[in-house]
Amino acid sequence: MDKRLFRQVYDLLLEKLKNKEWEEHEKLPSVRILAEELGVNRLTVLRAYQLLKETGRIYVKEKSGYYVLPEKQREGHVRTKEEAPLHESESESRFGARRSAQLHSFAQALVDPALLPNRYFSEYAKKVFDLYPKVLGTYSSVQGDEELRSVLCRLFARTHQLHLNMEDLMITTGAQQAIDLTARAFVQSGEVVLIERPTYHAAITIFEGCGARLVPVDIHPDGYDMDHLEALLRQYQPKLFYMNPTFHNPTGYTVPIRQRKLLAELAERYQCLIVEDDSFRDIYFGEPPPPPVASYDTEGWVIYIRSFSKYAAPGLRVAAVCAQPPRMNLLLQYKYQMDNGAPLLNQKVFLLYLASERLTGHLEKLRIALGIRKTVMEEELRTAGWTWESPQGGLSLWVRLPAEGGSAEEVLRRCAEHGVAFSPGNAHDPIRELRNYIRLSYSFVNEAGIREGMRRLISCSGVPERA
Amino acid sequence: MDKRLFRQVYDLLLEKLKNKEWEEHEKLPSVRILAEELGVNRLTVLRAYQLLKETGRIYVKEKSGYYVLPEKQREGHVRTKEEAPLHESESESRFGARRSAQLHSFAQALVDPALLPNRYFSEYAKKVFDLYPKVLGTYSSVQGDEELRSVLCRLFARTHQLHLNMEDLMITTGAQQAIDLTARAFVQSGEVVLIERPTYHAAITIFEGCGARLVPVDIHPDGYDMDHLEALLRQYQPKLFYMNPTFHNPTGYTVPIRQRKLLAELAERYQCLIVEDDSFRDIYFGEPPPPPVASYDTEGWVIYIRSFSKYAAPGLRVAAVCAQPPRMNLLLQYKYQMDNGAPLLNQKVFLLYLASERLTGHLEKLRIALGIRKTVMEEELRTAGWTWESPQGGLSLWVRLPAEGGSAEEVLRRCAEHGVAFSPGNAHDPIRELRNYIRLSYSFVNEAGIREGMRRLISCSGVPERA
Repeated sequence: MDKRLFRQVYDLLLEKLKNKEWEEHEKLPSVRILAEELGVNRLTVLRAYQLLKETGRIYVKEKSGYYVLPEKQREGHVRTKEEAPLHESESESRFGARRSAQLHSFAQALVDPALLPNRYFSEYAKKVFDLYPKVLGTYSSVQGDEELRSVLCRLFARTHQLHLNMEDLMITTGAQQAIDLTARAFVQSGEVVLIERPTYHAAITIFEGCGARLVPVDIHPDGYDMDHLEALLRQYQPKLFYMNPTFHNPTGYTVPIRQRKLLAELAERYQCLIVEDDSFRDIYFGEPPPPPVASYDTEGWVIYIRSFSKYAAPGLRVAAVCAQPPRMNLLLQYKYQMDNGAPLLNQKVFLLYLASERLTGHLEKLRIALGIRKTVMEEELRTAGWTWESPQGGLSLWVRLPAEGGSAEEVLRRCAEHGVAFSPGNAHDPIRELRNYIRLSYSFVNEAGIREGMRRLISCSGVPERA
Repeated sequence: MDKRLFRQVYDLLLEKLKNKEWEEHEKLPSVRILAEELGVNRLTVLRAYQLLKETGRIYVKEKSGYYVLPEKQREGHVRTKEEAPLHESESESRFGARRSAQLHSFAQALVDPALLPNRYFSEYAKKVFDLYPKVLGTYSSVQGDEELRSVLCRLFARTHQLHLNMEDLMITTGAQQAIDLTARAFVQSGEVVLIERPTYHAAITIFEGCGARLVPVDIHPDGYDMDHLEALLRQYQPKLFYMNPTFHNPTGYTVPIRQRKLLAELAERYQCLIVEDDSFRDIYFGEPPPPPVASYDTEGWVIYIRSFSKYAAPGLRVAAVCAQPPRMNLLLQYKYQMDNGAPLLNQKVFLLYLASERLTGHLEKLRIALGIRKTVMEEELRTAGWTWESPQGGLSLWVRLPAEGGSAEEVLRRCAEHGVAFSPGNAHDPIRELRNYIRLSYSFVNEAGIREGMRRLISCSGVPERA
């Protein structure tokens, strides 16, 4: 579609509306008919109608068509969910929370779309169609595009001290699919799964969903209590341990190298799979993080999940899961059942990203931008006298609420009235406690939004700011 | 990446190889170093190396690099799996069977990539990035892009007599993911699932995988034995009935309208969900097929799965699953667990396809091309005196083997030596019998390939051709 053409159609319709060629509440010509009349693509007309709807000129009746919105209604035009502009709707939280001018959302551990190289990436991604003219006509294999797997293996060897064969790596639709695959492939109902406390809320849902018995392992700023962990391994003989040892979600903590080596040993000794979710490795503010636990694994007891696209092109949903052959075969079997392989287009677009130094160079800028946002959020917390452990990477802070303000959920309710959102601690707790903690993500809102939102949050927490 | 640049790099390297600038078995410069030397993108070098590998000039050692292939080895260069050219490898069957110059594959119910509008589609798809500049930076909602769902609802209303709200429709990564979702959402281990006999082999795997007890329902050229079906519903009180009533896979049969109406009634009466997989509706050779069973459903007992992208851009993996609110909520919950929503890029590219009459017009040509291939295959079968029921649509024939040749699997083994493949009947049978039937897909091989492959198949079947 030609953008100028779209604009012309839009302007034409706007002119006609202004000239009152149609009456108030009159039905506009159907998309199909108008497209034929104007000799343009239907999508061009559809988009023009949508923009007119978004700007409050017309309205839509489901299954009927577009109608002229009366002028007086236009003045007081309040956007309902259905009428919200397309792009805003698309950039809403996946968990249902909507972004509005008023909402200061610290609830989403997602990168602010304004920090992503969207336009440049799009320009670049078009080249995929030149380079791979059959990319739309071709299925990927279940395991994923060979070229991408090969490039990722080289990347892991170079930067993660992780040496894999292409056969040990599968492409998934996001890290979440990889977690779901491990749950389906390796956990039977009633089996014990160790899981960090706190942890990624979707992992709790997934492992509970397959009937696992969750046993929590506390994570501290300096990692795990390894003696206690070994006691749990001995006592419960768990099937697997789901962990996120690098800039952990929600705390941002990182498990130190010496524990990583020991974890790989313990996994083998107690025949407990480690599922290492490495989704935040790219976002560090000081030194790059230590190599993954998987890099110390010699016997195939660590399944490594690496998320990528979220920091550059989250729309692509490209992640990888790595496992040794017998386990990989089982994962492949479930991946085959589940969707028969990730779409090839996304894999090829991501391949081009990896090959472009200019694009991957974006990460450097992103780290700086997120580091500034983190600093701003921490300044506000410090002023209020709150307590938290400052992490060296990731997208969030794990913050203890002052005792006087009530539980996280109570504070969240009060905050909601003031357009502030965050993730309450119990959502991250496999045993649904930790009610006096909250996760504050600094990745989605800009600096001014963080200052304003934090001040509202602190005031809602029921504790006056310190002088 | 600039294609001319890629060609220049390739030609440069080829020249150097011809001039023996490197010795036999000498290691070539790494991709990274050569890219720096030539001042080009690494991917350009990688692609050039791959093309040299594909054409038998160089070889690769895993984790080491590219090496000069000696001339004498080049002459007898036989492609191993690892060395196969990229695009050929990608267009191989998802089930592991490889296409080679010799292989006449009737095993894959996939459309021959040569019949797809790849190049034109690619040109068109690039426009998505202009129209939706943030498409790579944006997640889709779990349920799928609103614009696409709205267009699909209108399409279903116009062409399927199926009237849905946008909330009743979810986008999935292919129909297979939709089947897997219904199995996870609605079937508990030990529950009874009715399934056609024969049926789609992946559906057997999926429902067996969730512990269902499969009860077969024979499908005939004129549909089901409805009295017998009702008796099964009464006897087993099944949780759901997975069916593919329109150009059924593997037989091509279509359930008649009167049975469709009755099926919707029976589903409600016996509280048995119908999961209607409608993956072949677009491929008809005479009249368009009757409306789906779902169009006769008034009480929400039919879950409707519609596959789309396979006939135009299979790489996109876009399908839809439709269900009424309470069931849709459960499907959404599992979709959230499974991958948190299909990638937005694919949905937007597919949206442009639906809006383009020139692109959707491709289906008309595809029907003609496939109709010719079907005719050719049937001519060969007729000459051999084999028996089958000629279907009015779909991608395959369901053929009874002559008794003298042994089981389908025995014939398949003999055929494999002659480069012919098909899908044996027992793979499609929930009770693993039907050993004297085979599924022959006419969609993947061109007319000449069908003639040659069918002659080999018939000769391998152990029955001499009739005079």
